[in-house]
Amino acid sequence: MTNDASKAGSSILAAMHTAQTIAWGPILFQAARVMRDRGLLAALRKGAPQGMTIEEVAEVTHTSQYGVTVLLEAGLAARLVEKEGDRYRGTRAGFLLERDEMARVNMNFVHDVCYRAAAHLDTAIEQGRATGLPELGNWPTVYEGLQDLPEPAKTSWFAFDHFYSDDSFPLILERVLRSAPARIMDVGGNTGKFALQVLARDPQVAVTVVDLPVQIAKCKANVEKAGWAKRAAYHPCSVLSLDTEFPADHDVIWMSQFLCCFSEPEVVHILSTAKRAMKPTTRLMIMDNLWDCQKNEVASLCLQATSLYFTTVANGNSRMYDRATLARCIERAGLRLVDEVHEIGWGHSILECAR
Amino acid sequence: MTNDASKAGSSILAAMHTAQTIAWGPILFQAARVMRDRGLLAALRKGAPQGMTIEEVAEVTHTSQYGVTVLLEAGLAARLVEKEGDRYRGTRAGFLLERDEMARVNMNFVHDVCYRAAAHLDTAIEQGRATGLPELGNWPTVYEGLQDLPEPAKTSWFAFDHFYSDDSFPLILERVLRSAPARIMDVGGNTGKFALQVLARDPQVAVTVVDLPVQIAKCKANVEKAGWAKRAAYHPCSVLSLDTEFPADHDVIWMSQFLCCFSEPEVVHILSTAKRAMKPTTRLMIMDNLWDCQKNEVASLCLQATSLYFTTVANGNSRMYDRATLARCIERAGLRLVDEVHEIGWGHSILECAR
Repeated sequence: MTNDASKAGSSILAAMHTAQTIAWGPILFQAARVMRDRGLLAALRKGAPQGMTIEEVAEVTHTSQYGVTVLLEAGLAARLVEKEGDRYRGTRAGFLLERDEMARVNMNFVHDVCYRAAAHLDTAIEQGRATGLPELGNWPTVYEGLQDLPEPAKTSWFAFDHFYSDDSFPLILERVLRSAPARIMDVGGNTGKFALQVLARDPQVAVTVVDLPVQIAKCKANVEKAGWAKRAAYHPCSVLSLDTEFPADHDVIWMSQFLCCFSEPEVVHILSTAKRAMKPTTRLMIMDNLWDCQKNEVASLCLQATSLYFTTVANGNSRMYDRATLARCIERAGLRLVDEVHEIGWGHSILECAR
Repeated sequence: MTNDASKAGSSILAAMHTAQTIAWGPILFQAARVMRDRGLLAALRKGAPQGMTIEEVAEVTHTSQYGVTVLLEAGLAARLVEKEGDRYRGTRAGFLLERDEMARVNMNFVHDVCYRAAAHLDTAIEQGRATGLPELGNWPTVYEGLQDLPEPAKTSWFAFDHFYSDDSFPLILERVLRSAPARIMDVGGNTGKFALQVLARDPQVAVTVVDLPVQIAKCKANVEKAGWAKRAAYHPCSVLSLDTEFPADHDVIWMSQFLCCFSEPEVVHILSTAKRAMKPTTRLMIMDNLWDCQKNEVASLCLQATSLYFTTVANGNSRMYDRATLARCIERAGLRLVDEVHEIGWGHSILECAR
């Protein structure tokens, strides 16, 4: 072969490999999950660098030789293990699936929350609603069902949510507080995680939490338990109601991982409602994971794939947004994007807006 | 960064990409399937090379802009599409998933036959039986249920079986007939596909088909319909019964895609039974897809992943074998491996054995 032909050949092979990895994706996923959960990946980590035979892995993991054989061979297909002679070793990707917290959290979320629901993607797209959600329970959207999710879906859902949201708060408090705001409004404040951190950090600041009545009740209990009741106020409402207004006279309006739960027209509606409550000096700060503002393709991949959770499980019409889409919504709501910062923590961005 | 650090960094990123592609595999699979079935991949093929906007794809495929957006963004994650400005193009891998018959057959087989069953891989390994099969119906193994599989599982199962088996027969008839055998025994002859081709090709040869009584009945009907009844004989039996004997005095014993349906101890038992029926000059020819004798890693991947179909759906204890395993079984049965040929058609091998 000439060099060109050889290069074209290897490029065709790479494309075939990508295509077949996707085509067998559910099978490779299940093999990886069972290799992790039965301890095969851990055994191979401990057995490195000399590698282990099928018999050795079977003994250590109390698994039949047949089971170890089909799992390790699927692991070869998934490039999670490699084989030399009759000895198997884990690859770096295999070790990541076992040791990396993000990989573990993602895999549990995909299996326990999304796997069966995702098979309904065709009807979810066709009908514009989360047709996969009935695999978990009968609710209009997942949000009504969160506390009643069957296990292990509930544990995996909250672990996923926790992993991607909480770690960034300590990193951005200084930015939120740098203009010494007297009053902050937290729209979609949920159980009060952000409010509690702000109240603890700055003894001068007051916080108003906006959310559905059921969330407000939980949030209020948490804030009172922490002893911050005097500096907290609450505004129970549905942000989607056409007659909802937010309370005025706040210096900062905060929305964290909130807009991704709504469709584009809903996002514009929420931002317009915020605008009506803003003074000329009020800053609206939107924190979200934008898939086009990530450090690398892997982080983008996780967000782009997460969108289909929103499509099939959550509500059928929202997604992980890109910067361009949110910027367009901000403009349509009559707001100006005045500042932005990216690559916070696991990949959050803050878009800062003014009237 | 130094070159070494840069290289290590890109190697870590590649490993992370592999790990997350597996972790989100079921989601990426479903996105790819719906992109194919709703015509998004075909639209992008026709829209190349200038690419298409989300609005254009939505119009052509009668899909909501939201639906097109989440599908194309998941397509970016799966490397099936690429984006430049606001225009999307299919990648070579994306085109393969739409156009390549093997990719199409595999993807339908995975979705329609294996997807739900594969989620039971943990218990299938634990219990050594196909615990995913009840997702399709209540049979001891899939073989009893083939004719009663619900659609689209039935169509996808037979398309998969057909794709991988039938094309190689014309390529190997000459090899089977080169010693001018008077009598050929086809063990696991099923509905007679091989027998019919041999009988048509060589007017001197006689064929004995060995299989379960229910398969023999179908095979006999097919052979009679083709007008070859005089040169065909039948030996209905269960090859797993300890008291089964094969009829003697055959020049060639043929087993095509048969041994992969049995566990290793069962394979040794079947080969031992064959040996007792062999003359010193009889050749036993085993045709199978051996995952370690493939042209490239992609072909191996498909076979290694197929094993988990046997684990979760078929019978819970068989798999696509490698050459070393079959060679070991041949030796244990007291046979000698006297010749072998690989890379036939889509990747078949023939192992030729003598007493």
